[in-house]
Amino acid sequence: MNRTEDRPLILVDEHARAWSPKTARARFRAGLTGPTAGAAAGYTQANLISVPADWAYDMLLFCQRNPKPCPVLDVTDAGSWTTVLAAGADLRTDLPRYRVWRDGELVDEPADVLGHWREDLVSFLIGCSFTFEWALTGAGVPIRHIEQGRNVPMYVTSRQCRPAGRLHGPLVVSMRPVPPEHLAAAIRESSLLPAVHGSPVHCGDPSGLGIDDLAGPDFGDPVDAEADDIPVFWACGVTPQAAVMASRPPFAITHAPGQMFLTDARDEQYRVA
Amino acid sequence: MNRTEDRPLILVDEHARAWSPKTARARFRAGLTGPTAGAAAGYTQANLISVPADWAYDMLLFCQRNPKPCPVLDVTDAGSWTTVLAAGADLRTDLPRYRVWRDGELVDEPADVLGHWREDLVSFLIGCSFTFEWALTGAGVPIRHIEQGRNVPMYVTSRQCRPAGRLHGPLVVSMRPVPPEHLAAAIRESSLLPAVHGSPVHCGDPSGLGIDDLAGPDFGDPVDAEADDIPVFWACGVTPQAAVMASRPPFAITHAPGQMFLTDARDEQYRVA
Repeated sequence: MNRTEDRPLILVDEHARAWSPKTARARFRAGLTGPTAGAAAGYTQANLISVPADWAYDMLLFCQRNPKPCPVLDVTDAGSWTTVLAAGADLRTDLPRYRVWRDGELVDEPADVLGHWREDLVSFLIGCSFTFEWALTGAGVPIRHIEQGRNVPMYVTSRQCRPAGRLHGPLVVSMRPVPPEHLAAAIRESSLLPAVHGSPVHCGDPSGLGIDDLAGPDFGDPVDAEADDIPVFWACGVTPQAAVMASRPPFAITHAPGQMFLTDARDEQYRVA
Repeated sequence: MNRTEDRPLILVDEHARAWSPKTARARFRAGLTGPTAGAAAGYTQANLISVPADWAYDMLLFCQRNPKPCPVLDVTDAGSWTTVLAAGADLRTDLPRYRVWRDGELVDEPADVLGHWREDLVSFLIGCSFTFEWALTGAGVPIRHIEQGRNVPMYVTSRQCRPAGRLHGPLVVSMRPVPPEHLAAAIRESSLLPAVHGSPVHCGDPSGLGIDDLAGPDFGDPVDAEADDIPVFWACGVTPQAAVMASRPPFAITHAPGQMFLTDARDEQYRVA
């Protein structure tokens, strides 16, 4: 990624935390790009993947069979760029940055996809772990990547998702270093929000997920941990992008990792208890 | 329903509570029929709906858009009668009783569907509220329909589900009369199991759901309430059958209301916190 252009919003605009989702979407529509961690406090963030209608059943089934990385918040009708999760939003323009895929290859990374849109695209909005960071912060858990003004680090793991039709691929995770005294709160608070990935899939030694080097994430930025921090891994909504790379559908549009769709849904709306 | 034949299992065999799911499935495969409330304590029960592959996306999307009545536990590949939820099970024979639908009309109610099976059928297993009855019982909540040896009463409501493709139809609910002093426990315990319908959709006056007469359920049996009992309504996995009646797909197979598929999954497996 272009580090200048994609510097986190919290550096671009320290007031991003107080933005409404509508304000955030308007700024992204106007051209602002960058990771969205720390923006629009208390609102649900979503991953995007749009596939041709011919692939929509495979994708929906892939999500049903892999609910930790792919908790579906909404599915649009073919060709529609609106969602019940955000009044007035345009999925073609209102994310900071997109990725465009042909036959599993990344071919463009534009700030809008007006020129790539197709009438047969079905869009999936999938919960994002940035959402539960507010609950973690509220429980006193430090969020290192926000403290350090970076995108969250994400890693392709050695775990395979359960395949669905023509779609297969590895689990992708995000990682947050958590001080031991905050580990219980981090697990407890995220567990209560399964719609945005819920509880971690792994804590501790990254080799348990086949991750060799925490300093070299596959997506996002490396983050500095304190000496006693425990790496905590949550299932990540970039997993469908890994499935696109592995399964090579003819066409797909996704968000750029860490540059999410801001919905009008309060995080509390998805709390289970 | 034939009241002699479909008398609850707890009357047919008072040991049904202690059955393993495998034992229950074997007995149903051998011809035993009847409602499954109270059978195989602690195991997850599931609704079944099988539709032609051409309708599978509409059904999966209908479930995604209506997660309270239609929490999906598993989806089979087309033509398969096995499920990851129960080793060695055969979805064509292992439920007590089935319903067979053509163009939205009920055409048969057999004890197995070997003669109706099609290679293009995709089967959906959807969580059933019988599962959380164990948690309610454990919290001291009386379950009237089990006490009275009846099937749970189910009602078609005036609430419409969110449509998906060609599928639309009303919400169906199950009702349990709950003593006021147990209402909090009933809501709390069921809330923790969203995969089997979770919290109630309504408590109290049935007219709030457009239900005129609690004594005349659309499916199952009427149940006698104590004087102070509050009727509590949970979303019900018979909702896809109401969608079949309203939307008239060319073919479908479902379970008979109250006569569920017994999975090997422990109810605890679906507890969210």
